[in-house]
Amino acid sequence: MKRIPFLLVVVVTLACVILFSAPMSGHADEEAVPIFGIKIPAGYRDWKLISVAHEEGNLNDLRALLGNDVAIKAYRDEKLPFPDGAIIARLAWNYVPSEENNKVFGRSQSFVAGTATNIQFMVKDSTKYAATGGWGFAQFEDGKPADEALLKTCFPCHEPVKARDFVFTQYAP
Amino acid sequence: MKRIPFLLVVVVTLACVILFSAPMSGHADEEAVPIFGIKIPAGYRDWKLISVAHEEGNLNDLRALLGNDVAIKAYRDEKLPFPDGAIIARLAWNYVPSEENNKVFGRSQSFVAGTATNIQFMVKDSTKYAATGGWGFAQFEDGKPADEALLKTCFPCHEPVKARDFVFTQYAP
Repeated sequence: MKRIPFLLVVVVTLACVILFSAPMSGHADEEAVPIFGIKIPAGYRDWKLISVAHEEGNLNDLRALLGNDVAIKAYRDEKLPFPDGAIIARLAWNYVPSEENNKVFGRSQSFVAGTATNIQFMVKDSTKYAATGGWGFAQFEDGKPADEALLKTCFPCHEPVKARDFVFTQYAP
Repeated sequence: MKRIPFLLVVVVTLACVILFSAPMSGHADEEAVPIFGIKIPAGYRDWKLISVAHEEGNLNDLRALLGNDVAIKAYRDEKLPFPDGAIIARLAWNYVPSEENNKVFGRSQSFVAGTATNIQFMVKDSTKYAATGGWGFAQFEDGKPADEALLKTCFPCHEPVKARDFVFTQYAP
C-alpha cells in the first residue's frame, strides 16, 4: 500500500479548516461603501438581537437590529456613548401577510418576513468618524454598497437622537 | 500588616467566578410548565435570530424567533425534522408607535417593540414528546409558566404545518 505523504495530509487538513471556518453570512471580500469605507462585517447574521420594528410607508418592512458583542455589552450595561468597535446591524425584509398563519388564527392578522430588502450598519470609531458623531454608516443591497448621495443622508437623520449617541433603537428586554 | 488567609482568597475568588458567570437572561431556577416540564432555557436571549413577525388582533405584538445552535443549524442546512435538542424561542413585545421615529420620517409609519408580553419555547425531544410531534411546548409571562389548559392548545394549532415538522416560522435570509 502506498503511503500518503505527511505534508500532503497537513496541507489538505489546513485547507479544509480554512474553507469550513469561513463565515456563513457576511461577504468580507466585497466592495466597501464610499465615504465611510465599511464592508459587510463577516458573521453579522450570527449577532445577538437588540430589537425588532415595523416600518410602514415606502419602506413597508419588518426589521431586526443585531449587535456585535461590543454593542450588546454597551446596551445591556446601559453605557453611553458606545465604545469604539461597536457595530449595529439593521436587517430588513418585505412585510408579507401570512395566509398560512391567518388560517390558524381564523382571522387576517399575521405578517412575516419576506425577501430581504437591504442591510445597514453603524460602526463606531470615534477618531475615524469624528465628523459624524463617531459613527460610520453603510448600506448594502444584494451585497452592493449604496452610493455617496444616499450615505450622506444617514447622519443628519440620526442627529435628533444625539442624547442616545445617535442610535434610535433601544434594547428590547 | 496582617496577611489574608490563602483559603479565604480562594473561596472569595470562586464565589465571584460563580456569581458573574450566571447567565444574563434565562431563569434556570424558576418553575417548569405543566405537562411538558420545560423551564426557561438559560441564555436564550443570546440565541441567533431565525426571523421576525407582526401579529395584529388581540396579540398586537412584534415578535422575534431565536434558535439555539441545534435549531439554527437545522434551519440553515434545511434539514427536517429538527433533531433532538433543538429549541426555538418566540419573544414578543407590545406593538408601539414611535413618535420619535415618525418625526424623523415626517409621517406616521414607525412601530417598535414596547414591553415584553410573554415568551414561548418549542423543545424537540422525539421520545419524551412523541405524543405531540416530538415537540414540547412552553409559555412564560414574567417568568411564570402558563397553565395546563393553555399548553394543551399549542400542539393542535401547530398540526397544520406537520410537513415542516410543526414549525410555522421559516428562516429569514
